[in-house]
Amino acid sequence: MEPRSGILCLEPGSPSWPSGLTHIEGVPERLWARGREELLAERPRVAIVGTRGPSPYGEAQAARFGRELAAAGIVVVSGMARGIDQAAHRAALDAGGATIGVLGSGVDRPWPDGEIARRMAIEGLLLSEFQPGTDPRPHHFPLRNRVISGLCHGVVVIEAAAASGSLITARWAADQGRQVWALPGRVDHPLSRGTHRLLREGAALVEAPDEIVREVLGMDSAPPARSEADARAELPEIARAILLALQGETRDASELAERVQRPALEVLAAIVELEMQGRIARGPGGLYRCVT
Amino acid sequence: MEPRSGILCLEPGSPSWPSGLTHIEGVPERLWARGREELLAERPRVAIVGTRGPSPYGEAQAARFGRELAAAGIVVVSGMARGIDQAAHRAALDAGGATIGVLGSGVDRPWPDGEIARRMAIEGLLLSEFQPGTDPRPHHFPLRNRVISGLCHGVVVIEAAAASGSLITARWAADQGRQVWALPGRVDHPLSRGTHRLLREGAALVEAPDEIVREVLGMDSAPPARSEADARAELPEIARAILLALQGETRDASELAERVQRPALEVLAAIVELEMQGRIARGPGGLYRCVT
Repeated sequence: MEPRSGILCLEPGSPSWPSGLTHIEGVPERLWARGREELLAERPRVAIVGTRGPSPYGEAQAARFGRELAAAGIVVVSGMARGIDQAAHRAALDAGGATIGVLGSGVDRPWPDGEIARRMAIEGLLLSEFQPGTDPRPHHFPLRNRVISGLCHGVVVIEAAAASGSLITARWAADQGRQVWALPGRVDHPLSRGTHRLLREGAALVEAPDEIVREVLGMDSAPPARSEADARAELPEIARAILLALQGETRDASELAERVQRPALEVLAAIVELEMQGRIARGPGGLYRCVT
Repeated sequence: MEPRSGILCLEPGSPSWPSGLTHIEGVPERLWARGREELLAERPRVAIVGTRGPSPYGEAQAARFGRELAAAGIVVVSGMARGIDQAAHRAALDAGGATIGVLGSGVDRPWPDGEIARRMAIEGLLLSEFQPGTDPRPHHFPLRNRVISGLCHGVVVIEAAAASGSLITARWAADQGRQVWALPGRVDHPLSRGTHRLLREGAALVEAPDEIVREVLGMDSAPPARSEADARAELPEIARAILLALQGETRDASELAERVQRPALEVLAAIVELEMQGRIARGPGGLYRCVT
């Protein structure tokens, strides 16, 4: 294809300028887009980023998140790098979903080039703030990351070394008021260092794509709970007695022991079980109440 | 051995009553101890708990934490159950360290019985609030857990199912004002459910025993940093210029770009790199300052 054919140039204020890129630090002067331009319209978008050299675990999780977010109608955004980024893009494409690749080079010379770049230019969208013809340069990539996060509701980080470009994306996301999710892994794997660092710094722990779908789309896809009456019938007698004693009342452990007339330690054990099950909650002064 | 030989009975107020068990909900009426009674004296103690059926990863981590905490002079406390508990006890014993096993049965009839129980009665300490001769009963175990956490500075949870006795220990620990640490794992393993749940609820993420040793003993065992001058000499020129511009001043990104006379985007990229390295920090109003 010729260098500039099929390339759209946007400026802040253009109708299709992504609103997420209007109020960030360092608003790009222009954006060039190549592919399915409609993906820039208002749609829920989530970024999936991570190491260029993932473990099989990381690669599988990137594909799982890419596939399931795309299948739920969320646009999967990433940076086209080898490893986690490409696994996420590929899974989104394979699921027939939408995906945007944000480049550190011109959209006419995606880097790294290859099958995934060719597919993205047709089935997805390539996006860059660097004008067509620009070669990738090292300092482009940390900047590119602020566009990735700015486009999105939030960023999921899947495997990252202790000092990793993915952490830069997460930092941009936090600065921009976006959600940061981090996927935990084994503590004996070096690619868990980055995601665990994010979790220590307050990122949300994510185990499954469904959690993100629910948060971003505001849907509750959890299965309906069993009827409360059914569930209660299975409780031990002492637990039912405690729940009865907490109808419309708050009481502390010793009051409960007195009401249910069983040894204090047995009552305490049942209280802890009920608390673990989320049926009762402990408030100030050690007063328990029913959770309904 | 005869049922009661070598068994010490303590009451609240006895000189060797562990101070951690004085102000908890449900103070035990008595404690029976068998083994190295000196382990009840004031010493740093940390509990290691988890599933009875760990993965090789969980078992290896329990042994690692047990060994390294014990080697640092911390008493390793656990519940003597198969799996994580026993791996922690055994590693502490093998390291020549100190360990306490808190039972849900009398100290003369540890459950489960076996080699580790026999070693604990001699090389470690068995402790129970249930009088000698008591058989284990299901409701003893959640209660036993409050003694485990009460004895300790904090509790480390290593692999636990979504609804697990280890989470009860963690709940007690939180209620008692103790630290709760949780070890993350792969999201595709069911025994990560419990520890990840704790992390979502605010437990501290732990990757290595050393973090706990530092927190409990108040030591800083981190290796000495390279000299700041050496480290700075390796920075790109633009980064050095930014650090210079932030000597004794706070400035925002556009001021910095003006001072260092380089394109705004390059400056932004360098700022993010410096922030990631912990050399500068972003404060209110987007003002950066040096971290020294």
